[in-house]
Amino acid sequence: MQTELSRQLGAEHALFGFTPFPAVAAALSRAGGFGVLGAVRYGRADELRRDLDWMEAHTEGRPYGLDVVMPAKKVEGVTEEDVEAMIPEGHRQYVSELLAAYDVPELPEGERGGWRITGWMESVARGQLDVAFDYPVKLLANALGSPPADVIERAHRQGIPVAALAGSPRHAQRHKEAGIDIVVAQGYEAGGHTGEIATMVLTPEVVRAVDPLPVLAAGGIGSGEQLAAALALGAQGAWLGSVWLTTTEADLGSRALTRKLLAAGAGDTVRSRALTGKPARQLRTAWTDAWEPGEGPGPLPMPLQGLLVAEANSRIQRHEVEPLLGTPVGQIVGSMNSERSVQAVVDDLTRGFDRALSRLNRIAGTG
Amino acid sequence: MQTELSRQLGAEHALFGFTPFPAVAAALSRAGGFGVLGAVRYGRADELRRDLDWMEAHTEGRPYGLDVVMPAKKVEGVTEEDVEAMIPEGHRQYVSELLAAYDVPELPEGERGGWRITGWMESVARGQLDVAFDYPVKLLANALGSPPADVIERAHRQGIPVAALAGSPRHAQRHKEAGIDIVVAQGYEAGGHTGEIATMVLTPEVVRAVDPLPVLAAGGIGSGEQLAAALALGAQGAWLGSVWLTTTEADLGSRALTRKLLAAGAGDTVRSRALTGKPARQLRTAWTDAWEPGEGPGPLPMPLQGLLVAEANSRIQRHEVEPLLGTPVGQIVGSMNSERSVQAVVDDLTRGFDRALSRLNRIAGTG
Ligand SMILES: Cc1cc2nc3c(=O)[nH]c(=O)nc-3n(C[C@H](O)[C@H](O)[C@H](O)COP(=O)(O)O)c2cc1C
Ligand SMILES: Cc1cc2nc3c(=O)[nH]c(=O)nc-3n(C[C@H](O)[C@H](O)[C@H](O)COP(=O)(O)O)c2cc1C
Repeated sequence: MQTELSRQLGAEHALFGFTPFPAVAAALSRAGGFGVLGAVRYGRADELRRDLDWMEAHTEGRPYGLDVVMPAKKVEGVTEEDVEAMIPEGHRQYVSELLAAYDVPELPEGERGGWRITGWMESVARGQLDVAFDYPVKLLANALGSPPADVIERAHRQGIPVAALAGSPRHAQRHKEAGIDIVVAQGYEAGGHTGEIATMVLTPEVVRAVDPLPVLAAGGIGSGEQLAAALALGAQGAWLGSVWLTTTEADLGSRALTRKLLAAGAGDTVRSRALTGKPARQLRTAWTDAWEPGEGPGPLPMPLQGLLVAEANSRIQRHEVEPLLGTPVGQIVGSMNSERSVQAVVDDLTRGFDRALSRLNRIAGTG
Repeated sequence: MQTELSRQLGAEHALFGFTPFPAVAAALSRAGGFGVLGAVRYGRADELRRDLDWMEAHTEGRPYGLDVVMPAKKVEGVTEEDVEAMIPEGHRQYVSELLAAYDVPELPEGERGGWRITGWMESVARGQLDVAFDYPVKLLANALGSPPADVIERAHRQGIPVAALAGSPRHAQRHKEAGIDIVVAQGYEAGGHTGEIATMVLTPEVVRAVDPLPVLAAGGIGSGEQLAAALALGAQGAWLGSVWLTTTEADLGSRALTRKLLAAGAGDTVRSRALTGKPARQLRTAWTDAWEPGEGPGPLPMPLQGLLVAEANSRIQRHEVEPLLGTPVGQIVGSMNSERSVQAVVDDLTRGFDRALSRLNRIAGTG
């Protein structure tokens, strides 16, 4: 299952996977796909270095990439403390009340939240990049808009193509103008930050908008049939996120959360600003309900909301407080019903792709 | 482009089209697809009879179907007047104010609103069915839930398969239990009433939920690539609605509306309760904005909202009041950029399907 892009990047299959877990990213690259490690949760450069060393030791020379979350607009000299100070007291109060209502215990002494997401801060993201450029990563992806021009230039000097996520044709167009090499078209049904336009409509629109740049389709892809559909839409490959969450290599840090994912249906996700302040698809929980319109003070804009809820999320996760326990995940969660190895998922995707294609050829009368 | 279902129904292509316009439905059937005429706008049985006579004369013996909007739950003896009486005065006031704010003139003396949608009333839908069963329609579709058991039985006695729209796997499952023959899986991106689950995810879930019943994929399909994607997802055909609105055979009754459709982008639709009280995707206008959360009294439940806004919509349409002028339409409106004949659209779909398939075969290394 090869496209021009997958060949160019040295992968056997045009199958890209975003994941926060090095073990998943490495397993995907070993299985012939292209693993992309999410860096947003690495607060410290030495932790990222440790995990990239691990990647080097476990990818058998296969290509892999890194995904950072870097805003194009620089906010000069703003520290995390400055941003913290912008959070209204009423919002902090609301979070405390929610946690109290569900009897969420404190974090154990000395433990800092693993979910404290600071990678969006330019200083942190730049520290990550300084590390990344020491490793032979084969793709640099950026989640929030186009990365700054100097980052794109630096990547290009090192021969690394740059990808960026887009939720609308206009957004994709701006990436192209900024010098991006690959656009990931992220449909409404995807886990994480999404726009309103579904993959079925978004993919061909983005392909047209950025022609001749290659486009990866993201959102709603977890089976070989969906992979075939994504490629039929003109994409040069598929970019999958949710499906890896229930692989045996993933480490969600909570068995209760894994069980929730395995049990959830396609209608059990919501596009909510509860997590980061921007609409992101995630499991619907009592927590997301508490940030719906008409409930409480409503979510703050990014990055305030993320800072506001960081510790709360860590506490919920750490103590597995079931009604509040959630994660970004897409609508395909409805068909994530068993734990499988990354290799088994890849086999299933490639075999399912072949089956779907045979069926299409029969429908066309040519198979 | 044939599937078991299209063969069974006697169509050359597995390409189904919903349309309120007889000229479009007939042209689609003549072009080898399967035209399905929407009956909801026929208030009077003799008008439907006139248009079915016309269909008979213009389909050259090709198969076509009829779509009614019939609630499964019977509300005994409730008249349109009873329902009208349930509308709060504050809502009527709000509508009057909106119309005044945009200087919308009254309807000319003696003209009744063409958009007065009464087909959802059981009495009206049953009158439509009495007419329909006099004609050799090859498919009966129902928009709102499963039709009543006696209607399904009557259709089956006449050898007519019954289709029903579904926005979730559970919904589809209920159709199967009710004895429906074909499920139309209507994705989030579709024009008209939609659920939250996108076509990419919904189609395979519905295929699994109702196996071995055939499924048609609806929502987001307007090109051959999208058609190939829909079929790759396991559907036995595609069900298209929006794409016909800008065909030369369509009669929207307003050039200004056609121009708006041709100019709109994929992001210019909204899933709103403004039109019928249930979430339906439509062009975003100042009218839909006025019914968003936080604005005015908010939409009433179905069928109250439909009755409340019926005359207002007729006035807006009749006088082409641009900022308020809208129609149900899906996200593919972004790629509806020229007026073409139904035959040209079908040619484009089948040729595009072949192209997409060739590309998939190359990607698989078998083409
Ligand atoms: C748990 C989770 C976390 C994510 N975090 C990021 C991120 O940090 N950066 C990013 O570019 N995309 C992120 N995404 C989006 C994925 O890159 C991918 O585009 C998306 O998951 C594709 O849709 P799918 O969920 O239907 O597979 C995340 C997705 C999930 C499920
Ligand atoms: C103008 C318009 C009116 C519609 N009215 C109905 C209807 O009365 N009954 C019905 O079953 N579906 C109705 N639909 C939905 C279509 O049957 C079809 O499922 C939908 O348009 C498919 O998605 P698409 O808009 O992306 O093609 C309507 C769609 C449009 C665009």
